[in-house]
Amino acid sequence: MNRSFLTTISRADFLKLLANFPTVGSEIVAFDRAHGRILADDLAAPEDLPAGDRSCMDGYAVAAADTFGAGESNPGYLECRHQVVINAFPDFTLEPGECAWIPTGGFLPAGSDAVVMVEYTDEIGGGTVEIRRSVAPGENVMFKGEDARRGTPALTAGTRLRTPQIGLLAALGTTAVGVYRRPRIGILSTGDEIVPIERAPRPGEMRDVNSHAVAAMVREAGASPANLGIAGDDLATLREAMARGLAANDALFLSGGSSKGTRDHTLAAIAELPEAEVLAHGVDMAPGKPTILAAVGGKPVLGLPGQVGSAQVVMLVLGLPLVRHLAGDAHAFDETLRPLRRAVLGRNVASRPGREDYLRVKLEQTGEELLARPVMGKSGLLRTLLQSDGLLIIPAASEGLLAGQAVDVWLV
Amino acid sequence: MNRSFLTTISRADFLKLLANFPTVGSEIVAFDRAHGRILADDLAAPEDLPAGDRSCMDGYAVAAADTFGAGESNPGYLECRHQVVINAFPDFTLEPGECAWIPTGGFLPAGSDAVVMVEYTDEIGGGTVEIRRSVAPGENVMFKGEDARRGTPALTAGTRLRTPQIGLLAALGTTAVGVYRRPRIGILSTGDEIVPIERAPRPGEMRDVNSHAVAAMVREAGASPANLGIAGDDLATLREAMARGLAANDALFLSGGSSKGTRDHTLAAIAELPEAEVLAHGVDMAPGKPTILAAVGGKPVLGLPGQVGSAQVVMLVLGLPLVRHLAGDAHAFDETLRPLRRAVLGRNVASRPGREDYLRVKLEQTGEELLARPVMGKSGLLRTLLQSDGLLIIPAASEGLLAGQAVDVWLV
Repeated sequence: MNRSFLTTISRADFLKLLANFPTVGSEIVAFDRAHGRILADDLAAPEDLPAGDRSCMDGYAVAAADTFGAGESNPGYLECRHQVVINAFPDFTLEPGECAWIPTGGFLPAGSDAVVMVEYTDEIGGGTVEIRRSVAPGENVMFKGEDARRGTPALTAGTRLRTPQIGLLAALGTTAVGVYRRPRIGILSTGDEIVPIERAPRPGEMRDVNSHAVAAMVREAGASPANLGIAGDDLATLREAMARGLAANDALFLSGGSSKGTRDHTLAAIAELPEAEVLAHGVDMAPGKPTILAAVGGKPVLGLPGQVGSAQVVMLVLGLPLVRHLAGDAHAFDETLRPLRRAVLGRNVASRPGREDYLRVKLEQTGEELLARPVMGKSGLLRTLLQSDGLLIIPAASEGLLAGQAVDVWLV
Repeated sequence: MNRSFLTTISRADFLKLLANFPTVGSEIVAFDRAHGRILADDLAAPEDLPAGDRSCMDGYAVAAADTFGAGESNPGYLECRHQVVINAFPDFTLEPGECAWIPTGGFLPAGSDAVVMVEYTDEIGGGTVEIRRSVAPGENVMFKGEDARRGTPALTAGTRLRTPQIGLLAALGTTAVGVYRRPRIGILSTGDEIVPIERAPRPGEMRDVNSHAVAAMVREAGASPANLGIAGDDLATLREAMARGLAANDALFLSGGSSKGTRDHTLAAIAELPEAEVLAHGVDMAPGKPTILAAVGGKPVLGLPGQVGSAQVVMLVLGLPLVRHLAGDAHAFDETLRPLRRAVLGRNVASRPGREDYLRVKLEQTGEELLARPVMGKSGLLRTLLQSDGLLIIPAASEGLLAGQAVDVWLV
């Protein structure tokens, strides 16, 4: 028996190998197609934002010093001769003792440096406004350049353009933006027993589940999956399919059969490709141990385990960080913002020290408590995936976890 | 001063109003376009899955009873005359005292009911296999029908088709599926000061940030945003733009000016539409208080606050649940799986009892501790959105939170 698949590396070392691959190139896209993409260059603000000092409130623009000492029992009085209109820059100057009506978003007139909320004022007739609260300079004001300052970077390369960033691009009038292009991930199914989903499997055959599940995950991560079809376990066919897949894509993900025979064929086929180097042959995690990483002509080849449950864990832990890294995401390997939900473990769980365990759990709200119930089942079944809400990571050093313990469940 | 915007309802009551709107209709889509969509009808499995009993491991198929008593110090011995091949159903039957080589995924031959992992076996020559561990019936076997049973529902209506569900559809050979169509959400900007992002704002004007940010969020939630342009504060123009937007879409979201004048115009324009009913005029949350909900001809009209920060919170808390509900999602209002990250609050935070506060925080890993630092800033600024990682919800009954307290941060 060939035991080479037992020489495994740690997940941390595996991730370091992934981080060495180069990112894809960039392209210019229209602003309204840029959502979710990764910025390729620092973006300097073409103008100040806000363009001037603006009010956060409906109320009265004032010189703060004119309100000092004002309060409910000791109101101040200011003359109101002007009002700011929402769609024009004020063309007047406040004199000492004056105030001007200002709507939310209005630009402050010269001579004013703060806004008193309308709730603390009253018009008492004859153009006089009662002020029942003092304000500090700058109070209720958004300052010129507070969001972005002309000529300085408003966003840095490697930033994912999520809703707030899209808002900033809109505010700056940036109608086109340089982003990394979507990495093309070729997905090749392997295994003599795998048939296309359109075909009725004959006895012993199975429909191709993994390549469609992997494609869905790749698309969700912002890349373009390319379905390369199914290659049987014949060495030459497999090698040719891999070579074609690599030529047309930025990376190649192999999915399919999980028997040792299929794995051995995959390794042999990789070894026959020009400029091929197997970088990792196994990783210290369960499920996921038989994962393969190779570089072929500088492009990554990720060999996923064949069991559906295992393949999806490896995609979450290794495959999707690789996709995001290729896509230029500066935070591709950052786990700080991983969605971890605090819950209480429903029963004892044993774990073998020396490897990380990824356990499927279902979350159930029971009164005040969120309970994490392990979903047991064989990793070849879809049922365990369908029934679970997330993954519980048991560190390599741990021998297990106890019922009632607080745990952080990774929502996936 | 018109104080009608002070008659607010609770968030819970607001959500109940949203849940009364009918969902959109359904359509048939190709399987590879169904990712992220919501299933419109229960899906009955057309066949058993797995199609027969299958092995989870590389090893030997056995009758479990033949292994009873076997152990490291007391191995058993079975004769191996057959092997299961991965792409064919076994055409032989195990006799008592026999075993058969079986690869991962292989179908169990008649006469076997368990699999011994290869690690606990050795071929000792002459067709005899040493068995060093006993197995229970069913051990290392995925049973016929364990994932789905022919004729019974494999997935229920209202389920979002995420990766595991896509995998199940693939496994069942379901190449087309009935899903709710994507709700069309019309987004209308209001406010005389708002200009299209392509245009350079004149003094006093501002580019239209909100409608693009709202469109990004709507698209992320799986619906189709329709940009209806900008309507000024003229009542007739606003009313006509709203009527057109409602006719062509399943819902209308209003975004833009946040001054009281703009809000009053919006309400007046809604009231003039046929079959219009204002359902809520303010909600007990901050930011978000001036949110409007109306039904016009049975379709929802959601009036978002004008400040960019406020609009995005209201979208997360009210707008996106509405979008998901219209899209048929059975879990549109379920907060159990909200991505909450446990962290330690960085400083004291005061809160006014009687309303829910949504506070922007930045998460920072400091040693073992994940620190949640409140990001202060006016709700009209983009900076606070760009710098924060999530929201901290302070319940209506609370007077505030203390530095060092454990809090759950909603990652958004």
